[in-house]
Amino acid sequence: MKIEIITIGDELLIGQVIDTNSAWMGRQLNNAGFELSRVNSISDSEEEILNILHEASQRADVVLMTGGLGPTKDDITKKTLCKYFDTQLLFDEQVFEDIKNLLKVYVPNINELNRQQAMVPANCTVIRNPVGSAPIMWFDRGGTIYVSMPGVPSEMKNAMGNEILPRLLKRFSNGIIVHKTVVVSGIPESSLAEMLSEFERSMPDFVKLAYLPSAGRIRLRFTGRGKDKDRIERTLDKLIAQLETIVGDSILAYGDLTTVEVIAALFTHKKISLSTAESCTGGNIAHQITKLPGSSNYFKGSVVAYHNEVKINLLNVDSAQLEQNGAVSQYVVEQMAQGVRTKLGTDYSVATSGIAGPDGGSQDKPVGTIWIAVAGPNNIESACFSFGSQRERNIVRSTEMALVMLKKMVDRDRS
Amino acid sequence: MKIEIITIGDELLIGQVIDTNSAWMGRQLNNAGFELSRVNSISDSEEEILNILHEASQRADVVLMTGGLGPTKDDITKKTLCKYFDTQLLFDEQVFEDIKNLLKVYVPNINELNRQQAMVPANCTVIRNPVGSAPIMWFDRGGTIYVSMPGVPSEMKNAMGNEILPRLLKRFSNGIIVHKTVVVSGIPESSLAEMLSEFERSMPDFVKLAYLPSAGRIRLRFTGRGKDKDRIERTLDKLIAQLETIVGDSILAYGDLTTVEVIAALFTHKKISLSTAESCTGGNIAHQITKLPGSSNYFKGSVVAYHNEVKINLLNVDSAQLEQNGAVSQYVVEQMAQGVRTKLGTDYSVATSGIAGPDGGSQDKPVGTIWIAVAGPNNIESACFSFGSQRERNIVRSTEMALVMLKKMVDRDRS
Repeated sequence: MKIEIITIGDELLIGQVIDTNSAWMGRQLNNAGFELSRVNSISDSEEEILNILHEASQRADVVLMTGGLGPTKDDITKKTLCKYFDTQLLFDEQVFEDIKNLLKVYVPNINELNRQQAMVPANCTVIRNPVGSAPIMWFDRGGTIYVSMPGVPSEMKNAMGNEILPRLLKRFSNGIIVHKTVVVSGIPESSLAEMLSEFERSMPDFVKLAYLPSAGRIRLRFTGRGKDKDRIERTLDKLIAQLETIVGDSILAYGDLTTVEVIAALFTHKKISLSTAESCTGGNIAHQITKLPGSSNYFKGSVVAYHNEVKINLLNVDSAQLEQNGAVSQYVVEQMAQGVRTKLGTDYSVATSGIAGPDGGSQDKPVGTIWIAVAGPNNIESACFSFGSQRERNIVRSTEMALVMLKKMVDRDRS
Repeated sequence: MKIEIITIGDELLIGQVIDTNSAWMGRQLNNAGFELSRVNSISDSEEEILNILHEASQRADVVLMTGGLGPTKDDITKKTLCKYFDTQLLFDEQVFEDIKNLLKVYVPNINELNRQQAMVPANCTVIRNPVGSAPIMWFDRGGTIYVSMPGVPSEMKNAMGNEILPRLLKRFSNGIIVHKTVVVSGIPESSLAEMLSEFERSMPDFVKLAYLPSAGRIRLRFTGRGKDKDRIERTLDKLIAQLETIVGDSILAYGDLTTVEVIAALFTHKKISLSTAESCTGGNIAHQITKLPGSSNYFKGSVVAYHNEVKINLLNVDSAQLEQNGAVSQYVVEQMAQGVRTKLGTDYSVATSGIAGPDGGSQDKPVGTIWIAVAGPNNIESACFSFGSQRERNIVRSTEMALVMLKKMVDRDRS
C-alpha cells in the first residue's frame, strides 16, 4: 500500500517556510506501520494541483494533501478539488456552526470570507476541525483515498492524529504491528551501533530496530510484525531485557518519552518539587517543563539570570568569586543551583552557565563550554560540557543534559 | 524555464530528518530570478530514483538532486545515475586526489570505500567539491540539465552557491523577481482579506500578494516580476505605502522579521534594557529572546513565577491582593511587571499571568484567560486576552502579544 503527501504553497517553493509537516506525517505514518513513498511540494497553481493529483492517483493508494485552504484569494485548493472531482461547492451548516464557535472569541463579526470557508465539495466526507476554521475533506474515488487538510501544523497534527490515521488503520489493517521504544542517553550513535551489532544480528526476522537520534539521546524503536500480537509483544520484551544487559544504566526511559516527560512523571509520582536557574539556556528548561500540562504539580519557577547582576542579586552568587572565576565556572553554577533551590524552597534545582555563542568565547573557555549543576537535599553535583559552536544546539543540548543529570540524582536519592 | 528538486533518502520519508535543503535552495533560486516548480522527496530505491528522473525530465529544464552519495551501502544514487544515463563508473584521478587531501587530517588510511567515492559516471561533467568527499555531477541530456550533489547541507550550499547557480545563470537568461514582506499584527486573516479586497483588485498584473499567517500575525508578501528591477521595486514601494493607509498602525515590521527580531533590533538600537516576569508563558518569552545571538545586549533576565509564593517572594506581589484578586488578574500582572522591572533594574519589562490549560479554568476565568502587562519608565499598561483552550497555542499567542504590546509602548515612548 503506497502513500504520497502533497504539500501546497508558494511559500514552500520560494523557501519562506520550511516544510516540517511532511517529516511529522512521515514519522506518524511510519509508527503506525504505513510506508510513505513520496513527498511532492508544489505551488498554489490550479494547473500544478490538477497535474499532481492525476499523477499521484496513478501511483498511490492514499494521497494526503496539506495547505491552500485559508480564506484568502491565493488559497485555491478547494476550488481545484471541485474541478478534479468534477463537483461543486455546497454550503455546510455544521462547518459554519463550528467556524462561528471557534471565531467568536476574537472575531466580532463573521464575514463573507468566513462563510466561504464553510463551502465544501459536494462529494466529499467532511471531517470536523475543532482547532481551526478550514474543514478537512476526505474523498474516495477509484479505490484511492484523497485527504485535504490545513497546512497550519497544529491543525494538521490534530487532524492526522485524531481522525485520519485512525481511519486509515481501520481501512488498511494488514497484520499486526507492535512498536516498543527504549530511550538511551549519553552514547554516540556510532558507538551504540557497534555495541549492539551482535545483538542486532541475533534478532528474529520479524523484528526491525531503528535508531532515532536527537540532541544527546537515541530512541531505539523495535518494530515487530506478524499475526500473533502476544507472541510479538513477548519477543520484544525479551529483546529489551537483553538490551538492558548491554547498555545498562544508559537507558533513560522505556517508551517513546521525552526527557522532560520522564522528569514530570518522576517528580509528580514522588511528590517532590523543582526550580531552575538559567543563564545560557535562557529560560528554555523552564519553557520545556511548563509546556506540558500539569507542570505546576512540581515546578515552582525559575530565575533566568542572564546578566551577572541578576546572578548576584537574585541568586546570592558571591560577587568576588564571580569576578575571580568568571560566570562560566563550577563555583558560579553551583551557587546558582543552591541559590534558586533556597530562594524558591524546592527539593531539587538545576542551573546552567555557559557560552552559547556565536560570540563570547575565549581561548580558555571557547564557545560551547557549558557548566551544569544539580542540587538536591543530599548533595550538589556539577559537570562541564562542550557542545560545539552552534547557539541553538548548545541551548538544546544543555537543556537535555541538565534534565538527565537531574533524573540520575533523583533516582539515586530515592532508590 | 522550470526547475525541480529531487531529495533522496529514507530518513526524509520516515520523518527522521526534516528536509531543510529544499527551502534553502528554493530561496537561492528565487533570489536569482529562477522559479522552482516542484520538490520531490523519495526513498533510497533504484526504482523510485529511475521513475522520478524519467518523470521530472518530462516537466523540467533543470533537475537538482541531493542525497544518496555517501560511502555506505544504502547510498545508491551514483550507480542508479549510470543506469539512467546508460553509462558506467570510471575512476577519476582528480577526484581521488581531492578526497585524499580532504581526509588526510582525520583518516589515517584511505580505504576501499574512499576509492569508490572517486568513481564517477563516464558521461558527466565532474564539479569539484572542496568541502566533502562526494563529487558533484552535472549531466546535460536532451536539453535537460541534471545535477547530483551531496545532501549534507554545508556541502550542498557550497556547491549551489559557488558552482551550480553561476552556471545556471550563465545558461538561462531570466526575468527579475522582487519580494517585499510586511508583517501585520492583531487582525484576523479573514478580516484583513476583506479590508484589502479593493486594494488587491487594484494591483497591477505583475504583482502577486500572499498571506502567510502564524500565531497572532500575518506576513503579507508582495511578489513582482518583470524585466525592469527599478520599476518593480518602485511599484511595490507604492503599494506598501497604500497598504499603510489601510491597515495603519497594525503594521509590525517592514521585512520578513519575527516579532522578537523586531524587539531585538529596537532595544539594541535604542540602547534600552528588558526583563520579563512569566507565569503562564513559563519562560518562553525569555527563551525566544535568548535564542537569538546578541540578546545579552539588552536582555537582563527573567523571573518565571509559576507558583504564587514566587510571585510574592521574588516579585513583591502583595499577598493579600493576590488572595483577593487571584493570580490571573490585572492587579497581579501589573505588580509582576513592576516587580521584575525594579528588581532587575531594566528600562522595560513584560509580565504574563493566565490559565494556559487544559485544567485550572473556572466559570469566571475559563482556560485561555490571560493577562499581560508592560511596564516602562513612563507608565504601565495591561490587557486581558482569550486565546482558547489549547495550552501550546496559549503560550505562543501570549508570548507574541506581550512582545507586540512592548513594541507599541517603546514606539510611543521614543517617537
